[in-house]
Amino acid sequence: MKKIAVILSGSGVFDGAEIHESVLALHAVEKNGASWHCFAPDIDQMHVINHKTGEEMAESRNVLVEAARIARGNIEDVATLNADDFDALLVPGGFGAAKNLTDFAVNGAECSINTHVASACRAFAQARKPAGYLCIAPAIIPMIYGDNVQGTIGNDQATAAAFNQLGGSHIDCPVDDYIFDENHLVLSTPAYMLAGNISEAAAGIEKLVNKLISLS
Amino acid sequence: MKKIAVILSGSGVFDGAEIHESVLALHAVEKNGASWHCFAPDIDQMHVINHKTGEEMAESRNVLVEAARIARGNIEDVATLNADDFDALLVPGGFGAAKNLTDFAVNGAECSINTHVASACRAFAQARKPAGYLCIAPAIIPMIYGDNVQGTIGNDQATAAAFNQLGGSHIDCPVDDYIFDENHLVLSTPAYMLAGNISEAAAGIEKLVNKLISLS
Repeated sequence: MKKIAVILSGSGVFDGAEIHESVLALHAVEKNGASWHCFAPDIDQMHVINHKTGEEMAESRNVLVEAARIARGNIEDVATLNADDFDALLVPGGFGAAKNLTDFAVNGAECSINTHVASACRAFAQARKPAGYLCIAPAIIPMIYGDNVQGTIGNDQATAAAFNQLGGSHIDCPVDDYIFDENHLVLSTPAYMLAGNISEAAAGIEKLVNKLISLS
Repeated sequence: MKKIAVILSGSGVFDGAEIHESVLALHAVEKNGASWHCFAPDIDQMHVINHKTGEEMAESRNVLVEAARIARGNIEDVATLNADDFDALLVPGGFGAAKNLTDFAVNGAECSINTHVASACRAFAQARKPAGYLCIAPAIIPMIYGDNVQGTIGNDQATAAAFNQLGGSHIDCPVDDYIFDENHLVLSTPAYMLAGNISEAAAGIEKLVNKLISLS
């Protein structure tokens, strides 16, 4: 059975991993006969957002502890992720990818990336193992691959421009499809950067995960 | 388009709504061409559980605010739920159904139920509109319908016995199927009371939601 490592970034679209994308991705892994193995950084979230009002809350939460909600407790510190143990990597979106895994949401093309997340993603790239990034998580792709790597991050001009400034080559993509950079074995799909409901997000995510696992 | 009201109980299997079940249920509603409309009680959770360690955390969280994470902010106070506006009711599981909507997890057959949740569920029953309950949420069924209403809540003997003590008639059910009480138009499926992975939970949930919407 193929083993897919999944990096989560909390639990909730506005300050963590997008919940629908994460569940759809894990389910798609199972439907392909593979197993999922979740990881997240053991750090505080950038902030906590009240998902009912959109306002910041005066508290702090840990990314790994919150991501454990999506993984039903089956999750480990991303610092322990060894790419040798897995066949492919999958990174769902949500603002957590741009606030906790990186600070792309705040600093755009001048962003930084968590060192353990960077090490894990780079290990899959260097081992020529396929990787898939959903929604806003493709911001990570040029930081890892550079080399004008092709990817999609939705159709917002400024976001796409930042993707290019980071060293990537942005390609617009419909919500029900994915971009595949064959040279780097990396896939991306817009998911909730474009999706208006769960079914639209599912269309692209399921297609991407099918391809990811066929490549692994 | 049929409109399905969904009552969530937080966000996370150990103290709120089970995330996989909730997303699978919302997605199944969409796949049936219906729309989902989320509600949750505006109350504090019974407690907050660290989903990595299983231990209680020294903080408090609001059920409605946390459930908004699953609903991407599209959620209202269950006190405002008017059954006249909807065609069917759906209640995912997770310990939140037995800790926040009711206190079944603590008090078993001697439990109480949140008054707004009870009013909403009872309104669907009295209007003869169909309702579906997942996982541990079927504990609510006998509190609403009484009358030896048929339902399933997994195969645990003590839990099934409590279902019967509350006034229901428990029936064991495989994870990929549901129990349908035709007299009361109420459906239940074991989901994560029995499921070992997302796909197993999905099998019963999708079948139940298909039936729920065909009845509505």
